[in-house]
Amino acid sequence: MQHYQLCIVRINTFKNASNDLKRVIKMDLMTSYIEELNKLNFKNMYNNDFLLTWEKTYDEIKSVFIVAEALRKLRENNISSKIFDSGLGISLFRDNSTRTRFSFASACNLLGLEVQDLDEGKSQISHGETVRETANMISFMADVIGIRDDMYIGKGNKYMRAVSNSIREGYKEKTLEQIPTVINLQCDIDHPTQVMADTLHLINEYGGIENLKGKKLAMTWAYSPSYGKPLSVPQGVIGLLSRFGMDIVLAHPEGYEIMSEVEEIAVKNSKVSGGSFRKTNSIEEAFKDADIVYPKSWAPFKAMEKRTDLYEKCDFDGIDELESQLLLENAKHKEWECTEELIKTTRNGKAIYMHCLPADISMVSCAQGEVSASVFDRYRTSLYKQASFKPYIIAAMIFLSKIKNPQSVLEALERNNKLRKFQ
Amino acid sequence: MQHYQLCIVRINTFKNASNDLKRVIKMDLMTSYIEELNKLNFKNMYNNDFLLTWEKTYDEIKSVFIVAEALRKLRENNISSKIFDSGLGISLFRDNSTRTRFSFASACNLLGLEVQDLDEGKSQISHGETVRETANMISFMADVIGIRDDMYIGKGNKYMRAVSNSIREGYKEKTLEQIPTVINLQCDIDHPTQVMADTLHLINEYGGIENLKGKKLAMTWAYSPSYGKPLSVPQGVIGLLSRFGMDIVLAHPEGYEIMSEVEEIAVKNSKVSGGSFRKTNSIEEAFKDADIVYPKSWAPFKAMEKRTDLYEKCDFDGIDELESQLLLENAKHKEWECTEELIKTTRNGKAIYMHCLPADISMVSCAQGEVSASVFDRYRTSLYKQASFKPYIIAAMIFLSKIKNPQSVLEALERNNKLRKFQ
Amino acid sequence: MQHYQLCIVRINTFKNASNDLKRVIKMDLMTSYIEELNKLNFKNMYNNDFLLTWEKTYDEIKSVFIVAEALRKLRENNISSKIFDSGLGISLFRDNSTRTRFSFASACNLLGLEVQDLDEGKSQISHGETVRETANMISFMADVIGIRDDMYIGKGNKYMRAVSNSIREGYKEKTLEQIPTVINLQCDIDHPTQVMADTLHLINEYGGIENLKGKKLAMTWAYSPSYGKPLSVPQGVIGLLSRFGMDIVLAHPEGYEIMSEVEEIAVKNSKVSGGSFRKTNSIEEAFKDADIVYPKSWAPFKAMEKRTDLYEKCDFDGIDELESQLLLENAKHKEWECTEELIKTTRNGKAIYMHCLPADISMVSCAQGEVSASVFDRYRTSLYKQASFKPYIIAAMIFLSKIKNPQSVLEALERNNKLRKFQ
Repeated sequence: MQHYQLCIVRINTFKNASNDLKRVIKMDLMTSYIEELNKLNFKNMYNNDFLLTWEKTYDEIKSVFIVAEALRKLRENNISSKIFDSGLGISLFRDNSTRTRFSFASACNLLGLEVQDLDEGKSQISHGETVRETANMISFMADVIGIRDDMYIGKGNKYMRAVSNSIREGYKEKTLEQIPTVINLQCDIDHPTQVMADTLHLINEYGGIENLKGKKLAMTWAYSPSYGKPLSVPQGVIGLLSRFGMDIVLAHPEGYEIMSEVEEIAVKNSKVSGGSFRKTNSIEEAFKDADIVYPKSWAPFKAMEKRTDLYEKCDFDGIDELESQLLLENAKHKEWECTEELIKTTRNGKAIYMHCLPADISMVSCAQGEVSASVFDRYRTSLYKQASFKPYIIAAMIFLSKIKNPQSVLEALERNNKLRKFQ
Repeated sequence: MQHYQLCIVRINTFKNASNDLKRVIKMDLMTSYIEELNKLNFKNMYNNDFLLTWEKTYDEIKSVFIVAEALRKLRENNISSKIFDSGLGISLFRDNSTRTRFSFASACNLLGLEVQDLDEGKSQISHGETVRETANMISFMADVIGIRDDMYIGKGNKYMRAVSNSIREGYKEKTLEQIPTVINLQCDIDHPTQVMADTLHLINEYGGIENLKGKKLAMTWAYSPSYGKPLSVPQGVIGLLSRFGMDIVLAHPEGYEIMSEVEEIAVKNSKVSGGSFRKTNSIEEAFKDADIVYPKSWAPFKAMEKRTDLYEKCDFDGIDELESQLLLENAKHKEWECTEELIKTTRNGKAIYMHCLPADISMVSCAQGEVSASVFDRYRTSLYKQASFKPYIIAAMIFLSKIKNPQSVLEALERNNKLRKFQ
Repeated sequence: MQHYQLCIVRINTFKNASNDLKRVIKMDLMTSYIEELNKLNFKNMYNNDFLLTWEKTYDEIKSVFIVAEALRKLRENNISSKIFDSGLGISLFRDNSTRTRFSFASACNLLGLEVQDLDEGKSQISHGETVRETANMISFMADVIGIRDDMYIGKGNKYMRAVSNSIREGYKEKTLEQIPTVINLQCDIDHPTQVMADTLHLINEYGGIENLKGKKLAMTWAYSPSYGKPLSVPQGVIGLLSRFGMDIVLAHPEGYEIMSEVEEIAVKNSKVSGGSFRKTNSIEEAFKDADIVYPKSWAPFKAMEKRTDLYEKCDFDGIDELESQLLLENAKHKEWECTEELIKTTRNGKAIYMHCLPADISMVSCAQGEVSASVFDRYRTSLYKQASFKPYIIAAMIFLSKIKNPQSVLEALERNNKLRKFQ
């Protein structure tokens, strides 16, 4: 066997060399990632969904970061990371999206899946029966289903689980030959692909996951002229970043509470990780000496719950009234803006400013918004880098769900050394 | 030459082994399918469309089933069946669709084609000139064009032929380098991909195409609160299943006649195949001792013809009136429902219940519909399996139209043994 | 090394032979194209956009034609020209399109890129800030961005440059790992993929680029019942074809002037190339002894400028008034139709008739239009061939922007000899 192996490597070397004679074959790109993965237990990722970060163990979360970095390294070195020869990645967006849609499309493409959009009118998937049927009908050759469903409290995550259960049942009944992985691309509770990308950005900024320990993060509300932004980002941030020993402050005006269940998770996580979690109604207090600030508008959880009820009753007058109230209340908190003055109060005046984008920028996208133009501008490059991790995070989630032995496949991808692009 | 062959197999074995050392190479997956194909004459499938099942010989129909099963076997064994390195599969849906759209997308993807949707407004393809032009303009790098056009009697199938003729002319005139295959994804006359999938399901249930002989099939009308469902399924069912020696009963209330031309085809087919075809206006008579029941709503052919005329005259008042009449007439036949009582009268009370989905389920998707909830629920797994054959049927139609020597390519795919997905 | 090379070729030969034993390996398909390319300097194409033909040198333009022909030759010989293993081609159409959309999709697919549509509402990309952000957010794994933006004078090309600048900045700031190439799929100034395809058609008709010299081309206005067709085709035609020593006549009724900047380019080009450029208000004069006629409706530049201003002011009454004026003016020039009589006055009565399609055909698509039905019909095959070059032109533009050493990659593609489609 040894003889053949040698032969193959030579042949591959030659094949690539013939496309670009200057190509140098490095054979240890994947070593460090593989060694890291060897230390972790993530076997439950295999054939499982990614719906909430707090359903995953610390090792599993860490494995996603490592695989994301490994896939990035392969791509930067122009090595194919296609693990699928064919297969569909289905995207089901029940809300508009550019960033996440392109991230999902990029991740699927990177791994060899073709994206197929499911443009279901909401009415067609309205009761349990049809979810089960639709889930099976689209899944005959699907390897992944990415779902964004963040509009109504109590609905989005539930819907994802209904899809997942239907698929698993279909697999058990041998309707489906494989189990498509369900990836939460934003729901009413969590936004795992966003906050995992956010965290990987911080890991890169601070040079390691262990360096997050002791850093102060201010997850704060911020004013926006619109009134009903999802809660998934603040909830996702405190639910995930509380696992790394950080000192997390959640700040918002009175009345802008998020889901209490997620706060409880943050409290519990902080205890385990040796960090802290506390709340305040003062943005100043939150920003004071913060290493990282994440100022962002969201709607009050209770109001969003009420809105969902009104929608279910088709009480459109009630919705209009609620909206007016929320806008009035919102307008009282225009001082919740990420200004240069506030940034100056952070650690050495140099906190990392984060946002999931697009931000409401004062005097740019609106008269007054979440952040001043000069702050946003100064952090633009950092914000774009933050966003650049999302395709790799999604790809890593798919990879770990689809590949039983990720280490050996990463090694095989490097050894195969197939060019991502001719040169 | 023998020497080289040996060498290749070893190298391939090693290559795959390196991705997953536990992979066992089975070398005779395709043998039985190839042997079956060797007995058949299907050479006219090459470079031809699939528009109506009754335009195909028995051998040709059978070859589609065999190739569909072969492709399924390859996929189940994680072997790539990509026969295209690049190429487009164009989908032209003039009616909403989830199931067929995803089946077409899956089939194209399985074979290596990328789906490109043609979202032409109906107005743009309204006269012959433009059909010819559009057909050529989208076909420069297209290998397949899948068309659903089932809205107007006398239009859909005609349109598909116009596209096909335009393409063939374009090829002859050297505008096009290849002839894209036109696949009928449902027209006013037939729904070949549906009824071929239905039949392959029955072949699997009964353990062989020869075992369909003598089975009683009840293709019956059923009540639905909507009034204008296409005729393509009942027509397609009697047009195809009459070829296998079955005893076919077509049942519907008076006035719900289908195209007489298709009935004539069913009569002729039944004579040739040694089966029978008859009609009744009693669902009870149809269900009695049936092995298979296919209860489904459709609109009266004559009414649909009239509706098409009214549309051509833009007589919208006339259309409203027709619709009211049809709903009134429909409401008289609510007893045409597939109930537990009716199922009990079938062969041993255990007929196979079929539906093309989605079904109108009483008390679930509507107050009263085609089938009772308990019947539907009991047959759900079977119905989903029935649907699961469609992607493979479409892929087989494409395969047989594109590949001159299917046997040698199936063998090559197995021998190449390229993984569908890393493991 | 020689030994291994021999070995590879044998193995490849065998592999392909196993799929189709009749396949003959020709090893010099690419030789002439490579030799042609060796004579040219096109190194600035690498990593650069294609926005206006007159920004490219003669060598660069010629290299696009050669690579387009080389890619066509590979495809005709069923050899894969995939240079990407993964990657996205993003299409951003701010105007309806069938032809160019499918050409772009075909080109991307041919090279191995998956198309992802960006369906941004115009409002979302309305000011500079957001262009920069969107451009970066969609580009993390994008290799090409094709943009059609031809609606408003002074906007389309500017927008493309804004996207390009944002991307290049993103690359410099290390947000992006690669620079996606921006391809102009039609703007307010030029329509390079169209007129490059038009020119390649002429090169094929006349048997060489050098044979364009001295030919008379009539780029003429023609009547259409619609009033606001883009100027990009006439501008693109005179801006490009003036480079090959042709005698170009631009003809239109008084008041239908095009951008004067582009006329100046045509004048300058003609001097350099040894051709001529002149204007007339008589279609008869233009057609007289012409070798090629390109009669096509367009809107007056000045009116389109005014329309853009009115849109910016949201002066919809003003727009309605302008439209009425233009239609009135238009109706005075119904005699500007490409009739059999006019064609008879061209060189030997046999000029090549060109159109970018779809044409307004008298008595077919409208009562009276740009061309008579009998002329159009006689030239149909030629027109479709003209269109067939567009996918290859787009693919060549991408190829030359992405591949540093095109000659060696063309050679490698031939040598790899991977089948485009199994046979």
